[in-house]
Amino acid sequence: MKKIEEILEKVKSGELDIEQASENVEALFFKDLGHTVIDMDRERRTRQAEVIYCAGKTVEQIKDILSAHELEQNGVLCTRMSNEIYEQIKEHFPAGEYDSVSRLFMLQKKQRFLNRGYIAVVSAGTSDKPVAEEAAQTIEFYGHEARRFNDVGVAGLHRLLRHIDEIRGANVIITVAGMEGALTSVVGGLVGVPVIAVPTSVGYGASFHGFTALLSMLNSCASGVSVVNIDNGFGAGYLSVMINN
Amino acid sequence: MKKIEEILEKVKSGELDIEQASENVEALFFKDLGHTVIDMDRERRTRQAEVIYCAGKTVEQIKDILSAHELEQNGVLCTRMSNEIYEQIKEHFPAGEYDSVSRLFMLQKKQRFLNRGYIAVVSAGTSDKPVAEEAAQTIEFYGHEARRFNDVGVAGLHRLLRHIDEIRGANVIITVAGMEGALTSVVGGLVGVPVIAVPTSVGYGASFHGFTALLSMLNSCASGVSVVNIDNGFGAGYLSVMINN
Amino acid sequence: MKKIEEILEKVKSGELDIEQASENVEALFFKDLGHTVIDMDRERRTRQAEVIYCAGKTVEQIKDILSAHELEQNGVLCTRMSNEIYEQIKEHFPAGEYDSVSRLFMLQKKQRFLNRGYIAVVSAGTSDKPVAEEAAQTIEFYGHEARRFNDVGVAGLHRLLRHIDEIRGANVIITVAGMEGALTSVVGGLVGVPVIAVPTSVGYGASFHGFTALLSMLNSCASGVSVVNIDNGFGAGYLSVMINN
Amino acid sequence: MKKIEEILEKVKSGELDIEQASENVEALFFKDLGHTVIDMDRERRTRQAEVIYCAGKTVEQIKDILSAHELEQNGVLCTRMSNEIYEQIKEHFPAGEYDSVSRLFMLQKKQRFLNRGYIAVVSAGTSDKPVAEEAAQTIEFYGHEARRFNDVGVAGLHRLLRHIDEIRGANVIITVAGMEGALTSVVGGLVGVPVIAVPTSVGYGASFHGFTALLSMLNSCASGVSVVNIDNGFGAGYLSVMINN
Amino acid sequence: MKKIEEILEKVKSGELDIEQASENVEALFFKDLGHTVIDMDRERRTRQAEVIYCAGKTVEQIKDILSAHELEQNGVLCTRMSNEIYEQIKEHFPAGEYDSVSRLFMLQKKQRFLNRGYIAVVSAGTSDKPVAEEAAQTIEFYGHEARRFNDVGVAGLHRLLRHIDEIRGANVIITVAGMEGALTSVVGGLVGVPVIAVPTSVGYGASFHGFTALLSMLNSCASGVSVVNIDNGFGAGYLSVMINN
Amino acid sequence: MKKIEEILEKVKSGELDIEQASENVEALFFKDLGHTVIDMDRERRTRQAEVIYCAGKTVEQIKDILSAHELEQNGVLCTRMSNEIYEQIKEHFPAGEYDSVSRLFMLQKKQRFLNRGYIAVVSAGTSDKPVAEEAAQTIEFYGHEARRFNDVGVAGLHRLLRHIDEIRGANVIITVAGMEGALTSVVGGLVGVPVIAVPTSVGYGASFHGFTALLSMLNSCASGVSVVNIDNGFGAGYLSVMINN
Amino acid sequence: MKKIEEILEKVKSGELDIEQASENVEALFFKDLGHTVIDMDRERRTRQAEVIYCAGKTVEQIKDILSAHELEQNGVLCTRMSNEIYEQIKEHFPAGEYDSVSRLFMLQKKQRFLNRGYIAVVSAGTSDKPVAEEAAQTIEFYGHEARRFNDVGVAGLHRLLRHIDEIRGANVIITVAGMEGALTSVVGGLVGVPVIAVPTSVGYGASFHGFTALLSMLNSCASGVSVVNIDNGFGAGYLSVMINN
Amino acid sequence: MKKIEEILEKVKSGELDIEQASENVEALFFKDLGHTVIDMDRERRTRQAEVIYCAGKTVEQIKDILSAHELEQNGVLCTRMSNEIYEQIKEHFPAGEYDSVSRLFMLQKKQRFLNRGYIAVVSAGTSDKPVAEEAAQTIEFYGHEARRFNDVGVAGLHRLLRHIDEIRGANVIITVAGMEGALTSVVGGLVGVPVIAVPTSVGYGASFHGFTALLSMLNSCASGVSVVNIDNGFGAGYLSVMINN
Repeated sequence: MKKIEEILEKVKSGELDIEQASENVEALFFKDLGHTVIDMDRERRTRQAEVIYCAGKTVEQIKDILSAHELEQNGVLCTRMSNEIYEQIKEHFPAGEYDSVSRLFMLQKKQRFLNRGYIAVVSAGTSDKPVAEEAAQTIEFYGHEARRFNDVGVAGLHRLLRHIDEIRGANVIITVAGMEGALTSVVGGLVGVPVIAVPTSVGYGASFHGFTALLSMLNSCASGVSVVNIDNGFGAGYLSVMINN
Repeated sequence: MKKIEEILEKVKSGELDIEQASENVEALFFKDLGHTVIDMDRERRTRQAEVIYCAGKTVEQIKDILSAHELEQNGVLCTRMSNEIYEQIKEHFPAGEYDSVSRLFMLQKKQRFLNRGYIAVVSAGTSDKPVAEEAAQTIEFYGHEARRFNDVGVAGLHRLLRHIDEIRGANVIITVAGMEGALTSVVGGLVGVPVIAVPTSVGYGASFHGFTALLSMLNSCASGVSVVNIDNGFGAGYLSVMINN
Repeated sequence: MKKIEEILEKVKSGELDIEQASENVEALFFKDLGHTVIDMDRERRTRQAEVIYCAGKTVEQIKDILSAHELEQNGVLCTRMSNEIYEQIKEHFPAGEYDSVSRLFMLQKKQRFLNRGYIAVVSAGTSDKPVAEEAAQTIEFYGHEARRFNDVGVAGLHRLLRHIDEIRGANVIITVAGMEGALTSVVGGLVGVPVIAVPTSVGYGASFHGFTALLSMLNSCASGVSVVNIDNGFGAGYLSVMINN
Repeated sequence: MKKIEEILEKVKSGELDIEQASENVEALFFKDLGHTVIDMDRERRTRQAEVIYCAGKTVEQIKDILSAHELEQNGVLCTRMSNEIYEQIKEHFPAGEYDSVSRLFMLQKKQRFLNRGYIAVVSAGTSDKPVAEEAAQTIEFYGHEARRFNDVGVAGLHRLLRHIDEIRGANVIITVAGMEGALTSVVGGLVGVPVIAVPTSVGYGASFHGFTALLSMLNSCASGVSVVNIDNGFGAGYLSVMINN
Repeated sequence: MKKIEEILEKVKSGELDIEQASENVEALFFKDLGHTVIDMDRERRTRQAEVIYCAGKTVEQIKDILSAHELEQNGVLCTRMSNEIYEQIKEHFPAGEYDSVSRLFMLQKKQRFLNRGYIAVVSAGTSDKPVAEEAAQTIEFYGHEARRFNDVGVAGLHRLLRHIDEIRGANVIITVAGMEGALTSVVGGLVGVPVIAVPTSVGYGASFHGFTALLSMLNSCASGVSVVNIDNGFGAGYLSVMINN
Repeated sequence: MKKIEEILEKVKSGELDIEQASENVEALFFKDLGHTVIDMDRERRTRQAEVIYCAGKTVEQIKDILSAHELEQNGVLCTRMSNEIYEQIKEHFPAGEYDSVSRLFMLQKKQRFLNRGYIAVVSAGTSDKPVAEEAAQTIEFYGHEARRFNDVGVAGLHRLLRHIDEIRGANVIITVAGMEGALTSVVGGLVGVPVIAVPTSVGYGASFHGFTALLSMLNSCASGVSVVNIDNGFGAGYLSVMINN
Repeated sequence: MKKIEEILEKVKSGELDIEQASENVEALFFKDLGHTVIDMDRERRTRQAEVIYCAGKTVEQIKDILSAHELEQNGVLCTRMSNEIYEQIKEHFPAGEYDSVSRLFMLQKKQRFLNRGYIAVVSAGTSDKPVAEEAAQTIEFYGHEARRFNDVGVAGLHRLLRHIDEIRGANVIITVAGMEGALTSVVGGLVGVPVIAVPTSVGYGASFHGFTALLSMLNSCASGVSVVNIDNGFGAGYLSVMINN
Repeated sequence: MKKIEEILEKVKSGELDIEQASENVEALFFKDLGHTVIDMDRERRTRQAEVIYCAGKTVEQIKDILSAHELEQNGVLCTRMSNEIYEQIKEHFPAGEYDSVSRLFMLQKKQRFLNRGYIAVVSAGTSDKPVAEEAAQTIEFYGHEARRFNDVGVAGLHRLLRHIDEIRGANVIITVAGMEGALTSVVGGLVGVPVIAVPTSVGYGASFHGFTALLSMLNSCASGVSVVNIDNGFGAGYLSVMINN
């Protein structure tokens, strides 16, 4: 790791004493804010920018974390940021971009699209859009191309089939559906690439806030399918980027 | 009710005294075997032959019930009769027919097919066959035509689509599927007739013995779908007959 | 399909070039609003008008969808439309009818009653009325006759029995009940026509928001019963119309 | 307590020393077999004979417990005793009576019927009989009269209604049903006495081994109903005796 | 039934014609308000006054029902009436009494205490008080004596034991507890009278809104215990009155 | 017990009559406020100060309970006290300390740290802080030392490992985590002291409000782990103090 | 598709008549065995050989399916084949290979390893081996390299860490774990490639046959993780091959 | 670590070359049997002997693991070893002790009792004995004293109370109970030491194989209680030893 070597050089040259050097090395890995320990080594280790899950964090905590990363010029992706939180932080991070549908807030380093084909984000109904957008914009944040196929649920199969060639052409496919989640199995049976299924909490009664869609997708009769948590559009997008890399 | 009038005539003519007449009237409705009260009035009231659910009944109880109906020349449909039970009763009811896949035993009065179109029984996988056969043979027991479409699950959509015109031509459609039960939504979105969904216990792990398929079908994004209990092929067949009547 | 032939005629006569014709043909089937793909072919394919499930959709999305259908003079049935939504759209669709109990909004083409007998909507308690009305008004939207039997739950069996002959006279029966849902089994045992059971979320504690009623109805000891999702009055009404056709 | 006074008298008279007296007093309350502490004071405290739940106990343990009670001439009711266990203990307790349907084994002191009216045991189907018998024979063991109404489930309501006057005449009513357990609500709505509901594990699929019937009964729309554990015929019988006392 | 005879007398004397008489007879049993069918025969049939469960009913519906009963001078017990509802109805029914802890509203006919011993209402913690009061005041509404033992949960067993003699002296005992509901088993093991257990939704996390207490009570190792729905203080009070009658 | 002896001395000397003495003795154990029975003997019996769980109690009840203890100069720890409650009681108990993160309110007798080593409170994420603080401040209330290790979840294992020696040095370890709760197993496998796991409700979708973390911790592959209820930071802190004593 | 063109050529040349040609074309896609419709087009469409799930199929059905594929020289992978089934089919398919740990049976066309890096199969405990082997041998069947890391669960973290560099070097990682499934999060936090988590049914009590591990994995705090059904080693292996392609 | 130093000494002296030394060092930590990685460093790290969970392992695997430890003269505790397994391994490990009630197998190094007070193992019913013995014998294996209090469930509270002083005298208390698990709360409220609760699968119906007892214990109203997995007597015993150390 190059930065460690630089520190060691300074030790050797007497520019830094041992204690300072030790602190400097630790600072390459962590920044401890008291409530949060920021992982400064993440990009090197997992090859991806930091992600902040905002639900359950206070405005102050989010501001502290963002400031720490901004100082280091790290790219940061904030998920589940409510409009209320955004209104309170936006003036502090004018470079950040916010999208109120996906509830994503993105700071710095959004790269231009890599030339690696595209990832298809296929969603069943109009109400699944926030989750589908969370996936698609996560993909774009990491510099990959996302193509959206909205409202193509299996209750009207022809809506899906007219796009099937373009969907098949993707390197990875994300299916986003609530209710019974049948879209996943139908897509999974028609393609030869990995399918990541995102159950959504869309539905009522025995949909149990997405649990039925989750179980349904886990039992998909199509091979090549795996599943992430309910409404976890970010997780699916992130994983699809890993696969596409 | 004609039989009551006959009894009353006999009372009037002195052929029967009041007490005998009262017993005779009651006998038109019930036959009490101690463990079981046989419903003699069922065919008139619900327009259908008696059905005996055999699981949980002893051989002796089943024999008693069958004998009582045989005496009255009622048609009887026995469901969930194991091979073991059948071996012990078959010599007493030589006129009965048994099918070891559907585990149905049928006594007398199997009518010839009525001229009312057909009912489609569409099943997802090879392992769903016992439930699909329970539905199809129930339909045939009541004199309707069942057409079977086996192993047409959505993991290979073209297997289903090549039959879709014939399926659409049915008056009622029964879908039989385990795992994630997506077949129901796909069929439901393509047709304009009632769909009765039967979840099966086929699957493993998070299929929870058919509970996932059940939940999935209850949340179908297609309209015109209703659901019966897990593995309840009989119930679906019986209901389809009611609808087709 | 007649409209396709008309387009093809125009191609032949040179009135349309190939590209325009291709777009016109696709427009017969879909209208893509970005967030929603409208299924223009639905009435021909499933024989029924379009249905919009409003929960989870924004006011703008609902307005877009309704406008698209209004242009085509399609009939539309909107379910789960809250009073808040209605207040925001009513001036744009003055021809629409709204009912605040059932939360249905209906646009155009409400046909007069067909002469096909009636469908009974039987509900257990006063609190089940919104769901029962959703079923009954859905039936009426499609031009069938619904007869309502309210507050006839089994805790006072005589309330039900005094109407039993009229209930038996229906072609299809919908039972609507929360809590333990016993109404379904009692009705199912007394009639010879299809019974569609709608569990409702009425109850508390171990009613689990309708899950107990749902399970209870799925296990009904009466034959000829099938079940739809919790509070799904629309689904039951729609299916009953299909059966009555 | 008279027996304590007798011991104290003996201490006073010097017939017993303090240590012996202390042991004798303790023996009035407990007998410790190592694996089991027998409650010798139960009849005085709860007014009822001892009950041994046999499932999960070894033959040796059951023999030890029965022997200890036999010595004291206590009446004992053993529940859930399998045929296998009975075959291994019967020669040691020739005075015991065993019933293979209810799986009850009863030792000594079975009193003759008290003159306190009767308790109705109403069961839904033939397969519920073992549980109903466990309730009825428990009632009889404690010297009360049980009247059985078997196979009167609500799928054929007239089977129940022809007995309703006799059922209403009971002091307490026990309803025994599996599947959806609707019998409880129907009976509860027709009577003015306490109803104890026993869900049974009869059913399949979404009956979840009696859990559906349990939930259904807990949500009964009829007042005056309470519920015991699945298949707990003994518990219902025992409670009905307490109420009838 | 005396009132029917009076009507028949009037028919005989020509005071009423047949049609009027028929309506009058039906009016003895039902009053149909459209949304609600009032059971006018309830007191005769089940020996108890009418009970109105207010949750899920509109103010208008509740007023209609109360007015109908007031006209007939029936006693009425309203459960789960929120303060909001009460504020809107109180001026119409000045004779009614409301208690904001138990959320009960009581109309007319509150009898003076019968001389039948007392019913113990034993509750585990301070937070269980609303449910315990619902039980106790229901008992008092029907003219029986309720004795309250509050905050005697088993975490401090001596709080319970100092009252045990008075609890034992009751004819029926109601135990009210949330969390793990252990109070029921401890009380059940110490007494010889029926125990009705009411699980409450007091607790957090894995108490699952009372479901844990419910399951715990259903599995009580003490005999003589039965269970009602979560937070169903009314049901327990009502049943205890039936038993005490 | 010394205080009883003092009372008895006064009886002997005639200073107190029997009735007064009896009341005085009872007052050593209980103080009955009607809604709440205060356990005055708790500190002697369980060696710990009283704890008041405030959720579900009214302001008046909490004030009554605190006043009773204040009179006796008992230390009291109030858990789950909302800011709203605190605002209404603070002027009555000026000596009390409130912390809005942990929602603890502490009255009197906070001892200085005992010299018994320390207890480690290890939490997975920033959002787990309220629960971790509830545990840590409970520990400090009872005079033990708590060391906090925040935001060291296993998604970045090095954050945990850099503290592992200090964690291992604790006498007891509390792990606080939501989502999948993996922190517990990792810590449990690295240490040789008791680990108390607290699942938190942090997460979404299939975290089921902490139930997943709870189940996960109960199945930990590491030995030496036990679990408390979801979000029960107090319980873990209290137990750790018991172990450390 | 080349085979279609060959058929069409034969039609043109008169070698085949239209009807024969039509049958020949359909045979390229399906072979209908009555109970099973074989998907002859699968390899072209999804790029992978056919997979037969044997649980729930009879010996005869499996033999029919295998014979049909053998005729076409398709490669086939059979999963969940019990030893009993294998003993009955082995002489008919001498070229097949069977592994009794993974219960896989493989027919023909097993390619040699492609040069695409390797897939890591990381399993937590000795009892997880059958599932891990199902994954690893599936990978090998499709010609990819699987590296096994057995018994490296987090209860002894150093067992995992000594292999972490080799695990990180994989293109895809499969984690296989029962109980609390914490291995997935630990691995997921240490690597930068896709992780497929397979919960296993290893465990007891509150592991609920793998459901706890499933929930735990779905809630993993590490990004880049997705989940397949309980014990679905095949599914994970198959998906990893898709990703590695 | 002394053994490492010995190896290093040999390197220095030339007795070992680098490669051998490296292998020797690794061998101090692991022994890789292919299916199982034995943790040779466990005793030093967690201060406790190795534990083998036998369920799900083959006889061969168990023998391999035991042999590896025997070679190193490590003490080993095997849990959940069935009689069948024991019969197959006993001749290979004649020094081992097996107990068929607790299903524990213990190898070597069973130390004599330390002088650290005792641990109380308190169980509710006769059927809970296997789990209680697993806990007690685990305690004894590690050289601590276990005192057993069997069959003292709360249905007969006096059975528990007569031992309460001896139970209170323990340093740690383990409560073992199935059904509703109320024993834990009663004991927890009476003592001032840590209580470890073990739910057992004893019960039927709504005990859900111990899940009800588990939930009940997690919600105990007594402080100072924590819970382990269902039937996990070993886990409780092991943890109690850690606490007592």
